[in-house]
Amino acid sequence: MKSYDFEIEMDVRDYELDTQGLVNNSVYQQYLEHARHQLLKKLGLNFNEMHNNGVDAVVHKAELVYKKPLMGDDSFVVRSSIRQSGNVRFLFDQDIYRRPDETLMLTGVVTTVFMSGGRPIRPPEEVVEALKKYRKSHE
Amino acid sequence: MKSYDFEIEMDVRDYELDTQGLVNNSVYQQYLEHARHQLLKKLGLNFNEMHNNGVDAVVHKAELVYKKPLMGDDSFVVRSSIRQSGNVRFLFDQDIYRRPDETLMLTGVVTTVFMSGGRPIRPPEEVVEALKKYRKSHE
Amino acid sequence: MKSYDFEIEMDVRDYELDTQGLVNNSVYQQYLEHARHQLLKKLGLNFNEMHNNGVDAVVHKAELVYKKPLMGDDSFVVRSSIRQSGNVRFLFDQDIYRRPDETLMLTGVVTTVFMSGGRPIRPPEEVVEALKKYRKSHE
Amino acid sequence: MKSYDFEIEMDVRDYELDTQGLVNNSVYQQYLEHARHQLLKKLGLNFNEMHNNGVDAVVHKAELVYKKPLMGDDSFVVRSSIRQSGNVRFLFDQDIYRRPDETLMLTGVVTTVFMSGGRPIRPPEEVVEALKKYRKSHE
Repeated sequence: MKSYDFEIEMDVRDYELDTQGLVNNSVYQQYLEHARHQLLKKLGLNFNEMHNNGVDAVVHKAELVYKKPLMGDDSFVVRSSIRQSGNVRFLFDQDIYRRPDETLMLTGVVTTVFMSGGRPIRPPEEVVEALKKYRKSHE
Repeated sequence: MKSYDFEIEMDVRDYELDTQGLVNNSVYQQYLEHARHQLLKKLGLNFNEMHNNGVDAVVHKAELVYKKPLMGDDSFVVRSSIRQSGNVRFLFDQDIYRRPDETLMLTGVVTTVFMSGGRPIRPPEEVVEALKKYRKSHE
Repeated sequence: MKSYDFEIEMDVRDYELDTQGLVNNSVYQQYLEHARHQLLKKLGLNFNEMHNNGVDAVVHKAELVYKKPLMGDDSFVVRSSIRQSGNVRFLFDQDIYRRPDETLMLTGVVTTVFMSGGRPIRPPEEVVEALKKYRKSHE
Repeated sequence: MKSYDFEIEMDVRDYELDTQGLVNNSVYQQYLEHARHQLLKKLGLNFNEMHNNGVDAVVHKAELVYKKPLMGDDSFVVRSSIRQSGNVRFLFDQDIYRRPDETLMLTGVVTTVFMSGGRPIRPPEEVVEALKKYRKSHE
């Protein structure tokens, strides 16, 4: 199996369903965002604290392939990995698997950049360090 | 200027903002969905009626590039075009421009397929006809 | 007919529907919030600017009676009035009517207080003045 | 401490925050809905299955008092109780407490009715039985 940096389990909530009885397409982006922020927390980085310090991680691109629809009462796991690309971008590979049968429901690649004062910046030292430390501990 | 099949104006609502004061990334997909459904209506096709007749237009892929963030009190227009790709796919090219300065905020390509009974089907005759009729009236 | 301070027309969007094909209950609160903020704008008050100046209008209580459900493709109007209650509270009476048949769909009373630094404060002078000015111009 | 029929723990997700850095007011209704549906499940009743059988539990009234705001990174528990009122109504008493300090953040009373074919109906036998059985097992 593919290896990931982080996984988080979640349940579909009925208010996330649309009139087709399926999770609305926009809701998957909410799932992925929550998974990314929890991944960052695991690295010791807090999205809300960074924002208060004037640094925002901003989504630049999202490419989502919807394989199969999540439905009411489904449980699922979001598995995510993070990798740096060039000087300013971080890419998150994020896949959603249904529980317990491990069917792949969605694959996504989300590109983020760090911004400060309205401009892209090199990733803050704390982010690069946190990632390095994490990689080392998983070699 | 690029030509589109349909445009719809909308206002950012404060509940759509996140803690950064920006429209949350998932909300753009809601804007695009609403624009697609209104485009279909203009063609004489109703998303909810199709669903009641057992045919669902389902998003297969979404590729979104976030150029600049929409903020509180912003107005914007979603411009969309539809094109068939192969036998079963419809692609929507969808761009969001801020008003009144016409700054490009987001570009998206959303691929949809028609499904019935859990399987992809060729687009219903009414859809193909509606599109043909629309194209003819705009030649 | 009852008289209101402000009205705003809106359309149901398909992503707001739940699996019953009805607008989800939580979405009505989004409609009411948007209507309140637009009412404030009409009075010359901007929710986002007030926030940046350290003053937040915060909902203390919401009492909502769901009369009839809004459905896909419905249009509706939110009609709102504002009144002060005691020293620190503003009450919004907010009703939602379906268009064009003017059926009453929801009645709500939303109590708000102004907060600054985590504490309730007397309404800012600009708010009281804006309201007074508005009342005078409508006598 | 007050006794409840059911409790469920949840975490605030960053996309639920608004520009004030607080959970948006409408989101609490989503939390309460999810808690009610999970309570029903515990009683052996499934919201989506009931809908497919033509019976919908519909919110008639929601009275919410916002005591203190939930913020980013907060955890909380929703505690709910259900009681019948008259022939056709079920009332849910629902309170939200922050974790781990058990501060009361919101108190709510949500009145629901069962509907079938657009009309209120007496609660289905299965619901009454499920509730009776639950009460008996907790005496």
